[in-house]
Parts: sequence; structure tokens; C-alpha cells
Amino acid sequence: MPNAKVLPVRATDAAPCCPPLTERPLTAEEAERAAVMFKALGDPVRLRLFSLVASHEGGEACVCDISDVGVSQPTVSHHLKKLKEAGLLTSERRGTWVYYRVEPSVLAAMGRILASAPV
Amino acid sequence: MPNAKVLPVRATDAAPCCPPLTERPLTAEEAERAAVMFKALGDPVRLRLFSLVASHEGGEACVCDISDVGVSQPTVSHHLKKLKEAGLLTSERRGTWVYYRVEPSVLAAMGRILASAPV
Repeated sequence: MPNAKVLPVRATDAAPCCPPLTERPLTAEEAERAAVMFKALGDPVRLRLFSLVASHEGGEACVCDISDVGVSQPTVSHHLKKLKEAGLLTSERRGTWVYYRVEPSVLAAMGRILASAPV
Repeated sequence: MPNAKVLPVRATDAAPCCPPLTERPLTAEEAERAAVMFKALGDPVRLRLFSLVASHEGGEACVCDISDVGVSQPTVSHHLKKLKEAGLLTSERRGTWVYYRVEPSVLAAMGRILASAPV
């Protein structure tokens, strides 16, 4: 069967869903999906961790790369898991550590929702 | 009486603050400011209301323009106030109604934070 290389869509996947907010009102369903992602970034520690992963060399990071956010390693892991559940990060275990990577299509979709506001 | 049309800048104003998330890790302070805005959009009803205002004719709307989101008018007002507190909307009373308008610079800044992810 041709090309099954596309990753399975997650049940919690909140990915590319919505038009720019200035284009038309979101439907209830679209708003549900997009709000999950915004909510995940609506916590300062989580947002900071997300930016750490997003800007880390190679576009990925593990808990072992993160040290200076002022919260414990279990708390870091907890927040990274939340970001993953929201569809913003993907993860892969390699040896001892789980590496997290930003899901670029999701990030781009969120940017699109906000970006085309007339300025 | 002179026109007091420009609203004072709020203490909670979370306006243009942060570099793209992929550029470098946010500082704690930047994350605090940006998270306020993301959190405000992290509720489905609020996000939907925000899109209603953002996409409404003339770029502004009052509670009187909003009827089909499945929540009561007081709840609509409550959420609009929350969006205003987060710096995402400005408001102006005209006669009976308060009109809400999207703050384009804030929206653009949020889009910028997310948009430049490598896709």
C-alpha cells in the first residue's frame, strides 16, 4: 500500500485546523481544538520549556538539556508531557532519555491563526 | 469634554515582547508576559469570542453582536473582559454598549512568536 509514512494522527492532536482569527468566526469544534494548544502555552514555565526545546540545537532537547528554569526535573518532565499531549511536541526515547521535538506543522498552524491580522 | 478615547496602558499589558520561540529560550519575564496572552486564548469559548470580534465587520463588536456561542450574555461579557485584561482587546463605550476591538499589534506579536518556526 502506498505511502504510510505519515504519522498517525493522535487522538489529542490539535494540529492544523483553523483559519486566521480575522477571517471568520471559529466554529465550536475548531475553537475546542485550537484552545488546547493555546492553553498548553498559557503557563509561563511550560512556555519557557517549549521555547527551550524549539530553540535548542538540532530542534530537540531532553530533560538532561534543561537545567535553568527554576523547577525540578520531575516538574520539567510533567510539563513536557503536557506539551506533548497538546500535540505541540513529539517525543522519542533514545537510551536513558526521552528527547522532545517541536511539531513544526502545529506551530506553523498556530502562527497562521494569529499572524494574518491586519496591522 | 475632551475625547478620552485612548485607553490607559494596563499594568497587565502583555504586548509585543518576545522573540520567535525557535530563536532563543524565553527569559522568565518574557514567558510570564506571553503566557498571559496564550492563556487568554486557551479557553474554547473565549477563543471563539475573540475570533468573532476579530472577524466582525469593522474589526469591532459588542455583546449585542454576539448571539450564537451557546453561553449567556453575562458570560460573554465576562470572557470579553478577560480578553481585555490580557491585552488582546481594547474597549470603548458608545451609548448603551461597550464595543470591543482586537489589538492588532498584540495579535501580530503573538503570531511572530509562533510563526517563524522552520517548517
